[in-house]
Amino acid sequence: MHLGRRAILPLVRTTSTTSTAASSQPAVLTVGHALRERRRFTEADVAAYAAVSGDRNPVHLDDAVARELGGFHRGRVVHGMLLASLFPSIIAACFPGAVYASQTLKFATPVYVGDDVVAEVQALHIRAATANSSAASRYVVKFATKCFMDEEEGSHAIQGEAMAVLPTLELSSESTTD
Amino acid sequence: MHLGRRAILPLVRTTSTTSTAASSQPAVLTVGHALRERRRFTEADVAAYAAVSGDRNPVHLDDAVARELGGFHRGRVVHGMLLASLFPSIIAACFPGAVYASQTLKFATPVYVGDDVVAEVQALHIRAATANSSAASRYVVKFATKCFMDEEEGSHAIQGEAMAVLPTLELSSESTTD
Repeated sequence: MHLGRRAILPLVRTTSTTSTAASSQPAVLTVGHALRERRRFTEADVAAYAAVSGDRNPVHLDDAVARELGGFHRGRVVHGMLLASLFPSIIAACFPGAVYASQTLKFATPVYVGDDVVAEVQALHIRAATANSSAASRYVVKFATKCFMDEEEGSHAIQGEAMAVLPTLELSSESTTD
Repeated sequence: MHLGRRAILPLVRTTSTTSTAASSQPAVLTVGHALRERRRFTEADVAAYAAVSGDRNPVHLDDAVARELGGFHRGRVVHGMLLASLFPSIIAACFPGAVYASQTLKFATPVYVGDDVVAEVQALHIRAATANSSAASRYVVKFATKCFMDEEEGSHAIQGEAMAVLPTLELSSESTTD
């Protein structure tokens, strides 16, 4: 990885289930910390997402249209917003109760249906925020967010930033692997 | 509406099906043009989205946690990225084969499960782009994107901008209502 102080906590979730923790010490989010998830969106995932979102763009559902109109030489591509859903998904798995405040997304290269991707969120800035004296502390965290093909970390499918309000900086014991 | 030259083409899609066109003339996208979709995300929609995205944040699935950790007084809220999926969904319904290039999102106010919302994309800038002499023309369009509660247009749940590459500026005959 690029940063010396960057700690990687792989969230190995091949489907949608979270691995359980093996460590006894809770991990605490610090600046530089990166959280990752590896994922492959199948034809069934894309169909399910098209149904719930209503986004039936044929570039996601029809190889010929994806090639001809979208210019995607290998055919159907995963919805960009489905890939982007991995960012709040990682944050929610590590910090249940997190509330998303903003997200920017640049869709640079296509991800084809069935491709392996890695999504990563990395803490860029952390600030404690207490609404009033009786409220519990919360933390406003800015994350760099990116998604890349499994073995091509330099080539980003998606890049952007997100802001989220976390109820704690302690990673959920259900989110981490040792 | 606010803008005199703004043309509203309501996409009345109460579920995920698109109404068919009644007009014989194709509509063409121009700057100022706004396209809308009204939608209500149910508990089943949110559960389906949680399954495919892997985002099982309890603020979307558990009323008590949504109130306590998220501060959402009416309970479970719709995933912000599921609401945001309406923007590419509208664009794809009007311009099949459209390719999304970027999106910014600010999540300002919560949308509760079962609330009626309206998503709108409005063309801010249109530019023709031809990759080379043999390629068909495409159009790079910048859209203002917003989502608001059905009867509170001043109060935005989401605001942002998107860039998309469209294969044509003619609205699909299957996307518009008369």
